[in-house]
Parts: sequence; C-alpha cells; structure tokens
Amino acid sequence: MNLPAPLQAVVDALQKLPGVGAKSAQRMALHLLKEGPQAMEHLGSLLTQAAHRVGFCERCGAFTDQPVCSICQDSKRDPAVLVVVAEASNVLSFERLGQFRGRYFVLGGLISPLHGVGPDQLKIRELLKRLEDHEIQEIVLALNPTMDGEATAAWLARVLESLGLKVTRIGMGLPMGSDLEYADDLTLSRAMEGRRLIKS
Amino acid sequence: MNLPAPLQAVVDALQKLPGVGAKSAQRMALHLLKEGPQAMEHLGSLLTQAAHRVGFCERCGAFTDQPVCSICQDSKRDPAVLVVVAEASNVLSFERLGQFRGRYFVLGGLISPLHGVGPDQLKIRELLKRLEDHEIQEIVLALNPTMDGEATAAWLARVLESLGLKVTRIGMGLPMGSDLEYADDLTLSRAMEGRRLIKS
Repeated sequence: MNLPAPLQAVVDALQKLPGVGAKSAQRMALHLLKEGPQAMEHLGSLLTQAAHRVGFCERCGAFTDQPVCSICQDSKRDPAVLVVVAEASNVLSFERLGQFRGRYFVLGGLISPLHGVGPDQLKIRELLKRLEDHEIQEIVLALNPTMDGEATAAWLARVLESLGLKVTRIGMGLPMGSDLEYADDLTLSRAMEGRRLIKS
Repeated sequence: MNLPAPLQAVVDALQKLPGVGAKSAQRMALHLLKEGPQAMEHLGSLLTQAAHRVGFCERCGAFTDQPVCSICQDSKRDPAVLVVVAEASNVLSFERLGQFRGRYFVLGGLISPLHGVGPDQLKIRELLKRLEDHEIQEIVLALNPTMDGEATAAWLARVLESLGLKVTRIGMGLPMGSDLEYADDLTLSRAMEGRRLIKS
C-alpha cells in the first residue's frame, strides 16, 4: 500500500523543492493533514494566489505583484547607482541587508558559452535602454564569482565602459568567519588583488 | 523592501512545516517562482485536491481517499493480526517495510494524564467493536516507547486480556546501528528484558 493518490501527488511535488527529500516531503504532507484539511487547503490557495499575482517588475525585473516594483517606485532611492544582478532572487539578498539604497537591474541569467547562453538571451538591450536614464552614474556588477559570472562581468564591463559609464564590481575574497587555511587558490588570489589600505 | 505580499504569505505558510526554517521556506518559494507560475499553481491545486479528498478510513482510521482504505479492502491481508497504533501516520511506517500482512487500527492518540487525555478521547469503543470480528487472534500494540505509550499499552493490555485476547507489544531495545555506550538506562534495561535465545 502506498499513500492515497492525492496525498502521494503532494509528496511528489514537495520533493521537487530544493533541500526536500522523500522523507521530509512526506513529513510535511502528513503534518498538513494532521493540522486538518483547512491547513492544507490554505497553503494550496496561497500558492495559487501567488502564482497568479507575482510577476516581474517591468522596469528592473525584480519580483513584484505590481507592474513596477516598490524599489523602482521608491523616490527615496539613489538614482545614481544601479546594481546589475543575474536573477530576481539576488535582489532579495541585497535588500535583506537593508543598507543599499540604489536600484537594481536583473539580467535574467549569465553568459555561458558552455550552456550556449549568449548575450542575446540576456536583457542587455533592456539594460542599455535603462541606461539612457542619465541619472545613473555607477553600475555595480553583482554577479556570482563563477566562470559564467566572470565572463558576463568582463563582457558587460567592456560594453558599458565603451559608453563612458563607471562600472564597478562587488568585492571578492575571503568570506567573513572563514579560515585562510581552507581557502582555495583562486579565492586567495582574488583576496590579494582586492586588498585595501587599512584606514586608522 | 520585503517580498511581494502574496509571496510572503506563501513563505510564512511554508515556514510552519516541520523542519522548514525562514531561509529554506524562502528558497522553496523562489524555486517555485523560477520554475514559472505553472509549477506554483500546480502544487497549489494538488494541495487543495488532497485537502478535499484525503480523509480517514471508516474501519481502521488510516489515511485514505476512499471510505474504506485499501488495506482494509485487501482480501489477501491476514485477518488474524491487528496492529494498534496511535496515529494514522504510524501505519505508513509499517507499510513502508512491506513485510507485515495484517491490518491496523488507529487509536487517534495516547492516554496522557499530564495532558488530560483519558481513554475516552481515544477510539477505544471503536476498537472493541472491531474486535467483535472473531477472526482477530492477536493484537500487536505498536505504541511509542514513551511514558504515554507505556501507560496506554498497559491500560489496553489489561482491557484486552480481560476479553481473553492475545496481546503482544513490539520489541524494545537498542536500535540497529547504535552504540551500547550511548544508550540510555531505560533503553538498556528494556533491551535486557527483551533478550532472546540465539537460534543457530
């Protein structure tokens, strides 16, 4: 005997979520059942609602339930700094900090010759259009320190600098709390390159 | 800026699931978003369906999407052995083994004087009614080896034995792969009590 079919379908779907294995998917589904059918139905309708209402900001590509996201609408944001990220979820990581007051642009991916992704598949045209807004003075490339991220940053830097724009890249080096002994060579070499004068 | 409200509602609900923290709830929700709204809506409708269709077996109390579950309906099951468990989810644990061919009865909880749960709140009457089926020859109490489980087992054994029924309890002792050195005293004492002759 297996689980009743409708329950098994839920377990199978939960199991596709990141970090959820067979056992925890079953535990989640059973937990919902134990809470009563209301709990399960509630989560169901929340998901359905979110699926219908959450999309991408027309202007920057971040997640939003409005045509233009709250960051793009926020007049208190610094219009001079634009952070370019690969994915909409990356915006959330920076916003979690609550420190950065500029705006964002989501590329929708990274250039990846190995996976056949070229600049044409990214929102480069939209980015260039966005840059016609002459308030922007600095473009911060916040792309993953991976092969694809490096390739995309290099490509973008070339294009944007040729337009006379100031292009920076977020710092790379040892993560806080880590140990020199366990750092890989590339990280160490980037950390050396990124060294700064200590201000006392 | 926070997540769009409908997305935050999903994250909040996911976070109530067992073993899901703030970060993994957000990761799950974002994963669903990235998969496209279809994936999120799909999970939503599966949950809604399951909430409507999955209930408890009229006969044994296990999860089912029919009035009587597939185990109770299965004529190849041994009618002589009835395993009494506390929760519907316990049935799944035994069925996962695929070795036991008897049937089950779900008590719906354990006697717990500390939490004010007495025999009246459990399905004792339903169990006794089920035992009018004279095919049942052995009742296996498969209750947690906790204080409440022990109390319930002792109470049930007294009642059922007074009816002239054979009552057994699942074995208690060291779990497979564990280490004597780290076993608690009660487990060790149960393991000693439960010792068996090695058949060679």
